[in-house]
Parts: sequence; C-alpha cells; structure tokens
Amino acid sequence: MSQTKSIAAYENLRARTRELSLIDATAALLNWDEDTYMPRQALPFRAEQVAFFSGWSHRQFTAPEVGDWIKACEDYGFASDSDEAANVREWRRSYDRATKLPSELVEEFNRATTLARDAWTDARKRSEFPLFQPHLEKLIALNRQMADKWGYQECRYDALLDGHERGARASQLKTLFAEFRPALVSVLTPAVERSRSVSESFLEADYPIAAQQAFNREVAAAIGFDFEAGRIDTTTHPFCTSLGPRDTRLTTRYNERDFTESFYGVLHEAGHGLYDQGLKPEHYGTPLGNACSMGIHESQSRLWENHVGRSVAFWQHWHPRACHHFPGLSKFSPDQIVRAINRVAPSFIRVEADQVTYDLHIILRFELELKLIEGEVLAANLPAVWNEEFEKMLGLKVPDDARGCLQDIHWSIGAFGYFPTYTLGNLNAAQLMHRAKKDLPQLDAELAKGSYQSLLSWLRAKVHEPGQRFDPQDLMRRATGEPTQSRFHLEYLKQRFVD
Amino acid sequence: MSQTKSIAAYENLRARTRELSLIDATAALLNWDEDTYMPRQALPFRAEQVAFFSGWSHRQFTAPEVGDWIKACEDYGFASDSDEAANVREWRRSYDRATKLPSELVEEFNRATTLARDAWTDARKRSEFPLFQPHLEKLIALNRQMADKWGYQECRYDALLDGHERGARASQLKTLFAEFRPALVSVLTPAVERSRSVSESFLEADYPIAAQQAFNREVAAAIGFDFEAGRIDTTTHPFCTSLGPRDTRLTTRYNERDFTESFYGVLHEAGHGLYDQGLKPEHYGTPLGNACSMGIHESQSRLWENHVGRSVAFWQHWHPRACHHFPGLSKFSPDQIVRAINRVAPSFIRVEADQVTYDLHIILRFELELKLIEGEVLAANLPAVWNEEFEKMLGLKVPDDARGCLQDIHWSIGAFGYFPTYTLGNLNAAQLMHRAKKDLPQLDAELAKGSYQSLLSWLRAKVHEPGQRFDPQDLMRRATGEPTQSRFHLEYLKQRFVD
Repeated sequence: MSQTKSIAAYENLRARTRELSLIDATAALLNWDEDTYMPRQALPFRAEQVAFFSGWSHRQFTAPEVGDWIKACEDYGFASDSDEAANVREWRRSYDRATKLPSELVEEFNRATTLARDAWTDARKRSEFPLFQPHLEKLIALNRQMADKWGYQECRYDALLDGHERGARASQLKTLFAEFRPALVSVLTPAVERSRSVSESFLEADYPIAAQQAFNREVAAAIGFDFEAGRIDTTTHPFCTSLGPRDTRLTTRYNERDFTESFYGVLHEAGHGLYDQGLKPEHYGTPLGNACSMGIHESQSRLWENHVGRSVAFWQHWHPRACHHFPGLSKFSPDQIVRAINRVAPSFIRVEADQVTYDLHIILRFELELKLIEGEVLAANLPAVWNEEFEKMLGLKVPDDARGCLQDIHWSIGAFGYFPTYTLGNLNAAQLMHRAKKDLPQLDAELAKGSYQSLLSWLRAKVHEPGQRFDPQDLMRRATGEPTQSRFHLEYLKQRFVD
Repeated sequence: MSQTKSIAAYENLRARTRELSLIDATAALLNWDEDTYMPRQALPFRAEQVAFFSGWSHRQFTAPEVGDWIKACEDYGFASDSDEAANVREWRRSYDRATKLPSELVEEFNRATTLARDAWTDARKRSEFPLFQPHLEKLIALNRQMADKWGYQECRYDALLDGHERGARASQLKTLFAEFRPALVSVLTPAVERSRSVSESFLEADYPIAAQQAFNREVAAAIGFDFEAGRIDTTTHPFCTSLGPRDTRLTTRYNERDFTESFYGVLHEAGHGLYDQGLKPEHYGTPLGNACSMGIHESQSRLWENHVGRSVAFWQHWHPRACHHFPGLSKFSPDQIVRAINRVAPSFIRVEADQVTYDLHIILRFELELKLIEGEVLAANLPAVWNEEFEKMLGLKVPDDARGCLQDIHWSIGAFGYFPTYTLGNLNAAQLMHRAKKDLPQLDAELAKGSYQSLLSWLRAKVHEPGQRFDPQDLMRRATGEPTQSRFHLEYLKQRFVD
C-alpha cells in the first residue's frame, strides 16, 4: 500500500470524525437544553430529534468506508508513539464495538431500555420490584448477547465493563476490592463514632439562591474553571457536558436550606469540567481529544470536590468569602464546617452517601451485577440478595426496594459495568493527589493560600492533555508509578475521618 | 402517471421535509443558545456547526429527487383546496427560489455578507460610511444578479421582496405608501404637540429585574402565551424563535430604570409567539405549518404590543398588578402611564421610534432600497440622499451616518425587500383589529376586563391556523374583506394620538 493512500485514509477519518463531532456536540446541546430550559411539551419532538441525530451519527461512523480507512491506516503502520497511531487504535476499538452488534440487536436493546426505564420509574415510585423484574431479565439477557458479540477473554462482564473503562477486568476489580472492602469497614466504625457529635442538620439555615450562585461561581473560577468557555445552569440531576472544544456546561441544583448541596455539586462538576477544558482543542472530535475513561473522569471530580474542597485548609482559606455570601455562616468556625461536611453515617441511598460508605454501596452493586450477568444470581432474587448483602456491609435493614435495589437508574437503561468506575474514580483521585503532593512539595502551602494553579497544571499535564493516548491503567502508571491501588484512598480516609 | 406514484412522491416530500424540520429546528436551537447562554469562546465551533447544518439542509432540499417529487405531485393534480395542493405549491416556490441560483452565486453571496457585516459593524462604530460603501455596492450587484435568476414581472426589486412577502410588488407598495405617507405626516404634528407635556424620562425609577420578569410573565400568560410550550430568556437583541411544534422561545432585555423596555419587548415577541403556538402541530415542517409571511407575522406582534398593550383599557385593567410588582408605579394613574408609553417625538433611530414616526422610517428605507436595486441611486450617494429625505420626512438633521444610513443591520446581511414588511405588519395589525372588533361586538368590554380569549381565538382561526394555505394578501382578504389598506392604521393613530 502506498504512503499517499494511507495518509488519505487518515485524512478521511479526520474529516468524517470532525463531521461526527459537529453532530454529536449538537446532540449534546439537545440533551443539555432538555435538562435545563426546554419547556415540558417540547419533549416528543425533542426525542425525535435526539433519535435522529444519534442514528445519523451511528450510521456515519459504522459505514463500511470507515472500516476500510481504519484498516488502511493499520496497514500503513504509523509510528507507535504518534498521534495518528493512538487515534487509529481507538477508532478501531470503537468501530469494532459499534459494528460487531447486528442492527436488530441494537434496535431490540434500544426498545427494551425505553420500556425498562419507564417500568423502573413506576416500580421505584411504588417500590414494587416485580414491575421491573421482567425488564431487568430482558436487559440482562440482551447484555449477555451483546457481550458475546463483542467477545472477552475471562468473563462476559468484562465485555460490558470495557465499554465504560477500557481494559478493566472483573478479576482485577475483585482483587482490588477484596483488599479494599475490609479496610474500608475498619475505617467506618471509628469514623461514624467521630461523627456522632455532628447533627445532620448542623449547617441548616437560609441560603438565598443568588448568594449560593455567587459563591459557587467564585470558587469554581478560583480553582480554574474558565467561564469564558463554560457556564453553570440549573437542573434536577446535576451533570457536566461539553458542547464543543471551548464550551463546557456544568449544572447543579439548589437547596435554600443547605448551601453545601449546590456548592459540592458545582465543585464536583467543575472537576469534570476542568478535565474537559484541559483536553487539547486541536484534537477535538478525535480520541486524543476525548477523556480517557469514566474512572479517570470521576477521579477529577472527586479530587476537587473531596480532596481539595472538603479539607480544613480549604475552609480556612474560604471561610471569610463564604461568610461574605452567607453572613449567618460566621457563627461556625472552619473546623466546625469541615466536621459537618465530612459527617459519616451509613444510609440507604448511594447518591447521598458520605465518602466512607460510598464505596461500600458501589462494591455491593459491582458484586451483584457481576453475578446477574454471569448467571449466578437471578433477577427474581435480586431484592433478597441486595437486602442481605446491604445489611452485612452497612448494618442497616433495607426498608423497601425503592431505598434498595430500585434506587439507581443504571440497570434500567441497560448500563452494566458502569458502577465500578465510581470507585475507581475515588481510588484514582487519592492516588493522583498523593503523587501530586510528592511532585509539588509546595502544594499544601499553596492550597492553604487558595492557590490552585500548580495542582491544575500538574493534572493538565498528567491526566487531561493525553486524552485517550493511553489506556486508563497505563495513564495511572505514567502519572503515579503504579496502576490503581486502594491504599492511597484508605490512607486519605483514615487521615480525614479517623486520625 | 398513476395515482399511487404521485401519492408516493407526496409521502417522500413529507418524509424529507420532516427530516429537514428536525435539522432546521436544531439549527434554530444552536442560534437561540448562541444568543442567550453560549459562552463567548464557543463561537468558532458554533459557527462551524451552524454552517454545516445549513449547508446540509440546503443540499437535502435542493436535491434533484425533491424536484422530481414536486413535479410528480403537480402532474397528479391534488384538489386545489386540499392540504396537499397548498404544500406542493409552496414547496415548488421554495424549491425554485433555492435551485434557480447557481451554487457559485450562493457562495459568493455568503462570503460577501460575512465580510459586509464585519465592515458594517466597524463602519457604524466609527460612523464612517466609506468603510461600508464597497460592500454595499457588492451586495447590491449580487442582489440584482439573484433577482435576475429568480425572475420578476415588473421590476427586479419584486424578486427580492417576494422572498420576505410572497406576492408583494413594489408598485403596490408605492401606491399604498403614496396615500399613507402624507396622512401619516398630518397625524404627526398634532401628536407631537400632544406629547410635549410628557418627558421622555417620565416613568424612570428602579424596577428590579425579578419584578419585571414576574410582571412580564404574568401578562404574557394572560394574553394566552403557553409557558408549558415556551419560555422567556434574556438576550441583547430580542427575538422570538420556535424550536419545535411545542417549543416557542421569546427573548428580551432588561433596563433596570425602565420596565417598559422589557415589558413591551415581551408583549411584542409574545405576539409572534402566539402566532407560532397557533400553527397546527400536525403540519409542522410543511408550508401549512409555517407562518404566512413576515408582514403577517409582524401584524401579530404589533397587534398585541400596541393595539392591546398600549391602550387605556389595558392599563386600567393591569394597573393594580403592575403596582403590585412595582410599588413605585402607584404614584402614576393609568392615564399618565398610557400617555408616557405613547409619547410621540421624531428621533433618529428606527428601533426606538414611536408608533407615528416608525412607518416614516420604513418608507424612507423602502424608497431608498428600491432605488439602490433599480440603479436610480448609487451606493456612494446613499448618505446624502438619506439625510436629505430624512430631514424632509421627520424634520431632523441627521448628525452622522451611525444615526443615519448605517443604523440598521439589514442591508449589511444582504437583505433587501425586508423593511416594508414592518409597515405591512402595522397596517395589517390595525386592519385585523378593526375587523375583529366588528366580528366580536363584546371585544372592547372583554379587553377592558383583561379577557383575551375571544380575540386570540379569532386570530387563531383567521390568521394562525391557515399557515401558508393562502398568500398574505389572500389571507388578509379572507380575514378582513380586503387587501392591506392604510386607512385602518391611520384611523387607529388618529384616535390614539390626536383625538
């Protein structure tokens, strides 16, 4: 094959994926608008638009010529450390995942998730698992079929996990969590003990939304979020989305009695947003311009939200500004605030969980979804197994399925293998922060002064700018010297919640 | 041609235009977002998206098969009063307008308008017409070429006018305005006299934005704007756009010293919005689901803004609610407010003009753009001719071109033949309102009670629901018994500003 032809194939891929990026960013805008401003009655037409754009994007990427171009690039053989080689490698991976499924299976899966999501909404509202059970069975069966089409080396679940966290394996996660779980439980008891003196409603007061917005914005800008290339809007279920190379939208929700809800929501989403803003615009629309994985993305949100934002140093610095926006807050010392926002107490709902119990919620889900996919637990038995395991882990009796196995949306939209990325995010955050402090001896002193530039620059270079140049574990090795470990996170938890 | 084939051709057109409506509505969302929320640095990518979708939409509509389908429908011959016949007639018109221009001419026009708009922005800022002159010359030349390609019966300008107001002719407008202009001038002198006692800053005070928003929303809902299928956002240059069959977005801007700016902005845009919300959703994406013309659209905004919203009856009804939102307003009587919001005084800027002088601004522009296109005035002489005519009409010496011939964006984006639709809107509004009062003997009494349902229903049936079933003048004849006249508007002006 001549050099010219291979290079033309690469240029064709660049042009096609540029076009796809225009379409996909537009689909992202349609979704952002739906979740922030869209009037209610616009929904049916909006759904038709979103389906049209996602179908269009899928057809354009899975077209046979795209496969030919990728093959031509592979045959040409770009230097292994080149931009081109990294992009071609990831295009191949996405192309195979997208084209290995017969279109009937994709359509069946889409229909099934639409029905399952509706059934789940209803089942959760009434707390009646049997309404959801047949849909769950269907989605498990379809996920197994899809895993078989995608292929795997060790177990079916790996094929699903790979869609959220490239290269991750259930066996590795089992090993990681086997060490992590008991250590976490050993932190939990003293942490709960220490939190007993802090009531849940300790900081409750009136926090006007305008004041919350001003404080959130001030802190987000201070950690480096660029409001010339992003913004914050209001939604029901907060998220971060990017609508272009210089257009990152955070969302949050406000509780007028509790400023911490929107504040830590914004810090969390701003962590995601800083990652997106740190991707190289010249690679936008190619794998090198995409975030590495869910587990790496979540490490960025957790790092800013928890390691930075819930620390004593943070509150010592920001206390005056917080009191400026919320005068009533001045009756609490920074230490009191830190104790309140780091309160540990087992509870039923994952999204409301503290930092110590959070990963127990995740490990429970990982173990259960692995068994559901591998056929070791039947959908019909899910509530019983969930409740039993939950009580073992967290010492609480699940009162109903709405507060048990029906609480999360993930399975109802057919997403299996997603949950573990939350815990990977926590572990990665601690590991990255540990290494950053080693690499930047002045970091603690800087953070105490509210200076975040050198931490952000370190994250830019080590995590953001590579995009998908490396697989997640390779990226972690390059940034910290080893793959994801649990000991850094445990160390962090002990230091913050026990010592 | 067999019946089946023709019906298939029509179904093909429906399918293609449905798909186009998904794309076009998305392009409208991209534009709405750009003008309301988009962060500044997102602009280059957004421009690329908008260009991509508009090019794609154009190609999909101008494809040869679309011409074949239209031809097949014409050959089949749907009943002349059928939905199908109306859609086919309008598809033919749009298809011919879109395909008669060679693509090089379209591209040259697009390039020229991009450059001209930049040059105009700069020229207006510095008030230096020569910076804009070569671009204006270029756009006039290109518009003449386009008119020749489109074809016309009486004069080139008609081909341009037809793009904004189907079937309108310069000769008819000349006749209409020849009668209207002197009558307008005869109203102007006594109206100005009567306004002398009201200072421009009569109502100036502090009007918090949140209070303005609450009052605007209350009134917009009262006249029938459906907030389940629409909303109001903030922008620099207010507009109304529809992003789907049940998704109409109004925009406005706030002046904290003058609530009337956002209030009448919202009433105006809500008039447009009521029209869009009154189009039949089942026809969305076809001509029967589109607004009739610019001149009809503007009649709806003017009717609600001026005939309803600036009347004594309106303020007698809304005064208590306005005082609820703006307590300081209670020191003015409804009559005083009405006099203030109907103040007449010649001024330089069209968009700030009162209702009496407004149409003089338009007639000036119509006469000048007609002469520019027909070659009777050279671009180089525009400032001199403008200033001379302006002084004749409005008795003011134009101090600089920024407040003269450089003030409007229209010509800089190559839009000739657009201006007259503003005056057609005013005339149509008065004529429709006159007829509505005849058809609905209780209307005055209802309006005095703040009840707008029967007026809205009348407009729905006569104006909104037909979409493009009739040409604008045909629609006016069916609604009011005659084509657009000036006497109803003159009667309204005399009654409000002189009697």
